[in-house]
Amino acid sequence: MAVPPVIALDVMGGDGGPAVVVAAAEIAHERYPKLTYRLYGDEAAIRGQLGRAPRVAANATIVHSPDVILGTDKPSAAVRRARTTSMGMGIAAVKAGEAQAMVSAGNTGALMAMAKLTLRTMPGIDRPALAALLPTLKNDSVVLDLGANVECDTENLVQFAVMGAAFARTVLGVERPRVALLNIGEEELKGTEELKLAAALLRAADLPMTFAGFVEGDKIGAGDIDVIVTDGFTGNVALKTAEGTGRLVSGLLAQSFRSSWLTSLGYLLSRGALRALARHLDPNAHNGAVFLGLNGLVVKSHGGATVRGMAHAIGVAHDLVAGDIARRIASDLDNFREHRPVVAANDGHDATAA
Amino acid sequence: MAVPPVIALDVMGGDGGPAVVVAAAEIAHERYPKLTYRLYGDEAAIRGQLGRAPRVAANATIVHSPDVILGTDKPSAAVRRARTTSMGMGIAAVKAGEAQAMVSAGNTGALMAMAKLTLRTMPGIDRPALAALLPTLKNDSVVLDLGANVECDTENLVQFAVMGAAFARTVLGVERPRVALLNIGEEELKGTEELKLAAALLRAADLPMTFAGFVEGDKIGAGDIDVIVTDGFTGNVALKTAEGTGRLVSGLLAQSFRSSWLTSLGYLLSRGALRALARHLDPNAHNGAVFLGLNGLVVKSHGGATVRGMAHAIGVAHDLVAGDIARRIASDLDNFREHRPVVAANDGHDATAA
Repeated sequence: MAVPPVIALDVMGGDGGPAVVVAAAEIAHERYPKLTYRLYGDEAAIRGQLGRAPRVAANATIVHSPDVILGTDKPSAAVRRARTTSMGMGIAAVKAGEAQAMVSAGNTGALMAMAKLTLRTMPGIDRPALAALLPTLKNDSVVLDLGANVECDTENLVQFAVMGAAFARTVLGVERPRVALLNIGEEELKGTEELKLAAALLRAADLPMTFAGFVEGDKIGAGDIDVIVTDGFTGNVALKTAEGTGRLVSGLLAQSFRSSWLTSLGYLLSRGALRALARHLDPNAHNGAVFLGLNGLVVKSHGGATVRGMAHAIGVAHDLVAGDIARRIASDLDNFREHRPVVAANDGHDATAA
Repeated sequence: MAVPPVIALDVMGGDGGPAVVVAAAEIAHERYPKLTYRLYGDEAAIRGQLGRAPRVAANATIVHSPDVILGTDKPSAAVRRARTTSMGMGIAAVKAGEAQAMVSAGNTGALMAMAKLTLRTMPGIDRPALAALLPTLKNDSVVLDLGANVECDTENLVQFAVMGAAFARTVLGVERPRVALLNIGEEELKGTEELKLAAALLRAADLPMTFAGFVEGDKIGAGDIDVIVTDGFTGNVALKTAEGTGRLVSGLLAQSFRSSWLTSLGYLLSRGALRALARHLDPNAHNGAVFLGLNGLVVKSHGGATVRGMAHAIGVAHDLVAGDIARRIASDLDNFREHRPVVAANDGHDATAA
């Protein structure tokens, strides 16, 4: 990037509000000193935080927005308030080219609806997808879609694979990501027709990725696959089930440690190890889901993100802009369309089995 | 049950073969002394195990079967060998009324295909479902479908709810199970049309369950829902993702404990707590998935089940027979059909939101 990236921040979004967002912007600026910000929200509330954030104060334009989207607002109602809300005005800044990306910890449904309506999908993309980072035994993996699309066809899945691979190259720095389709078995004949055809296309296509076929849910955590592609329903359930299982195991572990004085002592001595585990799995360390496939970048932070979590989300936005993800996706899609392979769902495989 | 239940066992199925299956049958007989068995497999191999299993020796009929279904056999090929294999002959015993249930740790796809072909679906059931027990912070929950049906319509989901509730009443002993549909949000307007309509039907119907609406993946582990209903694709991914996350957390924990001499000492003192955790999550303690909706009961054990795990699966079969689950499902379905509510997917709710 020749021009230092400008990031628009929805300062009013998330449980922590301006205090968390401005403090996070300060940390992100220490990491990426060329960043500049456009801060959208209540001007007085923002100014009240700048005393503790000298880097932000020196590198931000404040744009007062009189209204705020709440967590309880319905998406259909929220889009009508795009012009007056911090969320809507931040997205509009991306559309106008005043910012290269926008970060919000606000209402997910409203953010998705506003972003789609304002920015529209990229040429060659039928539907945008929500992609996020997931902790594994090795490096983080990218998972998409996480709920933007309840039902997906073959073309959607192929486009998600292209976008997810570009995400992994840009944010995770993996030169040739391993990409797989989430399925209920690794054999070629498992799953829906859409999945089988998407697998055949990705296997035959010449894309900057290594297509690894199908992956099952129990292999995600091993971290051998960089990009896991699935429809929004399955992806959302898988991500939340993983979160819930993490909480289940922590809860059971806490119960177990309290069961005797010996295990309580063991707990005291092991606290360092348990803290390291908690840090590795902490959603804040992986915070920043991205709406991919729009004419402009929008990053969604967890509503309950800490300062550190919000700073990570701003870092994801920075990396996407610095890595020029939009150009990568566009060029990969062009290339795919020009040399589109002609395949059948079971190309090269035994079609006689059940 | 007036008659003591007869369980058919596929003695050749699973990684442990006759040694594990016969030893498990011995343990199950200690728990349920009225059980009798029909053992299907290589007669010499079975007899070789009976010296260590006096209860089985006294309460079993051995039926020699010359052939075995292997884990690598394709379902379409396996069904042609139903008459000569331990798996096929065990299922045939259920059809003939010589046994009330059959338990196998063999090839899942082959077992499902053979069971469907031989036993056929119950009246009122369009498709059978695979149901299993899942550990939670509280008691086990029932989850179905786990992969028998990749795509499911509204009727399938309603039938799964009826069958899952009967499973929970029979095996978990919950008088009025809390049943929920797995979805990507708890709000009425989330998810597919099939899910919304199934929710409206289950809410309006008078069934022996408490319908709790939608549940998200991250709430499964809390154990507040007794029966989680979903299509086979999503259920399979969710179950495997939960397993994988469990392994991820254990793997990270082991890494963390090895990080210093202090945490290693902590590990030594905490071993009791960690073992209790491992026991709680051990698949063997929840082993025994059930094909529901067929004219006969077939229970699938993990291929790698231990003696204790296999004994648990035999116990599940016993409970299903003793609780007369087939009669319960049939009567609930009759009742549902007679008083079928007339509903729309968004009954009683705001249809204007996005």
